[in-house]
Amino acid sequence: MKITVLAGGVGGAKLVDGLARIVDPADLTVIVNTGDDFIHLGLQICPDLDTVCYTLAGIANPDTGWGRKDESWAVISQIERLGGPTWFRLGDQDLATHLERTRWLQTGQTLSEITRSFCEAWGVSVQVLPMSDRPVSTWVETEELGWLPFQEYFVRQRCAPRVKNFNFREVSQVEPAPGVLAALREADLVVIAPSNPWVSIGPILSIPGVLNELRKRQDCIAVSPLIGGKAIKGPAAKMYTEMGLEPNNLTVAQHYRTFAKVLVIDEEDRGETESIEETGVIPFVTKTYMRNIVDREFLAQEVLRIRSSLGGQTTS
Amino acid sequence: MKITVLAGGVGGAKLVDGLARIVDPADLTVIVNTGDDFIHLGLQICPDLDTVCYTLAGIANPDTGWGRKDESWAVISQIERLGGPTWFRLGDQDLATHLERTRWLQTGQTLSEITRSFCEAWGVSVQVLPMSDRPVSTWVETEELGWLPFQEYFVRQRCAPRVKNFNFREVSQVEPAPGVLAALREADLVVIAPSNPWVSIGPILSIPGVLNELRKRQDCIAVSPLIGGKAIKGPAAKMYTEMGLEPNNLTVAQHYRTFAKVLVIDEEDRGETESIEETGVIPFVTKTYMRNIVDREFLAQEVLRIRSSLGGQTTS
Repeated sequence: MKITVLAGGVGGAKLVDGLARIVDPADLTVIVNTGDDFIHLGLQICPDLDTVCYTLAGIANPDTGWGRKDESWAVISQIERLGGPTWFRLGDQDLATHLERTRWLQTGQTLSEITRSFCEAWGVSVQVLPMSDRPVSTWVETEELGWLPFQEYFVRQRCAPRVKNFNFREVSQVEPAPGVLAALREADLVVIAPSNPWVSIGPILSIPGVLNELRKRQDCIAVSPLIGGKAIKGPAAKMYTEMGLEPNNLTVAQHYRTFAKVLVIDEEDRGETESIEETGVIPFVTKTYMRNIVDREFLAQEVLRIRSSLGGQTTS
Repeated sequence: MKITVLAGGVGGAKLVDGLARIVDPADLTVIVNTGDDFIHLGLQICPDLDTVCYTLAGIANPDTGWGRKDESWAVISQIERLGGPTWFRLGDQDLATHLERTRWLQTGQTLSEITRSFCEAWGVSVQVLPMSDRPVSTWVETEELGWLPFQEYFVRQRCAPRVKNFNFREVSQVEPAPGVLAALREADLVVIAPSNPWVSIGPILSIPGVLNELRKRQDCIAVSPLIGGKAIKGPAAKMYTEMGLEPNNLTVAQHYRTFAKVLVIDEEDRGETESIEETGVIPFVTKTYMRNIVDREFLAQEVLRIRSSLGGQTTS
């Protein structure tokens, strides 16, 4: 059974890792948000791609949700000594990824090709696809500071400014990366990972052709990133509130209802099932919090169980 | 007394360090070879500039002659894992220098400006000038492999191929960096450091205007890089032999005789004084091998002693 997952960083990476542990990783494709990508210290940084790849390779830092485990910080401390910017902490091992990626991009290789080659080196057999090879950059409009590039908002300002709007620059002019539309069309199961609907899943849905493929299927299983009105990590709930919406699973269901068949929510939010049903999305209650590998595998199993209970795929 | 030194990497750095310890560093200017510079991993690497600055800052690796002391290697080991090039070993701390330099060059700052700013951060008060702001690249023609960029010859091939010729690409089109000609014109003493005459001092002499300034003075003190027909470090002696010349101080004197007043040679080569005198260059015999800080200061003192024995400068 071929599975395609749309994912952002941490939560997405965990669910994909869970799936990769219970199915043949070669049958698994993950389409990763690259709207957070930016150039820093002259290097091309792809935070979500790296979090997904590092997690699948078993070399991610389990505590931070970004970067490498057993990391050292010699480069950034010397950059600090030279008066360079240090608000975006780049570890030494992590830096090697950005250096090699930047170098290969400069020779004309695409982000897809580079990602494939890195995955091979790291022993990752899941097919990891950036949503597009050409850059799309997420900008966040804030009350206090106007429009900010995503990492300025997310890391430098620590998500403090109130959000008014989002913009995925150049998104209408880019093409999905090779394999993205086919992976959505040919999969037996499409999963929306528990990632931020605004700034992780949102950019992927904005890539021309992606939403259309999902709507043709109308059978995808979305996992809500909210539990008890809060996100496990990141500003999803805060964003809903600031955009004038309740930070709950009903809002997530409304966000995804044009293509999602099922919304997986946590036991804690069992009380929301009726309201979700009214949107036409089927709520499925289980344990969605992934504290450890066992939780990842459990949630992945649950997603497969939902899929088999739904019967054959409904691809047009 | 203002002193200007022409220098390459290791030997040059040691003598400049010796001088900086016995005179006011603010009166000291060093014009550094940048012919060895190259782009590696997408970064601008300036080996001689860095060796000079690291040595003056007290952060150079005393054993290798390049790189930083107490260095770590996390980045390069991960680059290796990704299949990237590792023949040019870049340490983590060292890498920060190249990253920041490359970033500032990309914003339009000049190499001189960046070097000044780095020296400030490292607490180096000697004025360190690259020979030029625009790149000049040293190429080495070899018997076995034809023309090689300097670092390919020097690091990758470990100086093994036999040398036939040298070329400093673009050198006739570049200008000396701001301050270079003035430092040669206004100094009370100009010193040629014990660096490789072919590939360390040679590129500096090829910068338009430099040789002319030196010849106007005809009073500079050169320190031979050879002791007993061998170079302390690097391929200077091998290069002389392969170019059909005896690797001795007479050859060095002939190399520099159009502008050098004195050639400082080691006690071991006392027997060469007569032949050197015939070139019109005054030989001065002392201990030139710099094993430690005391040796550096001693040689620096000897150079000052020669200067005072020569009397007032002969600037035209």
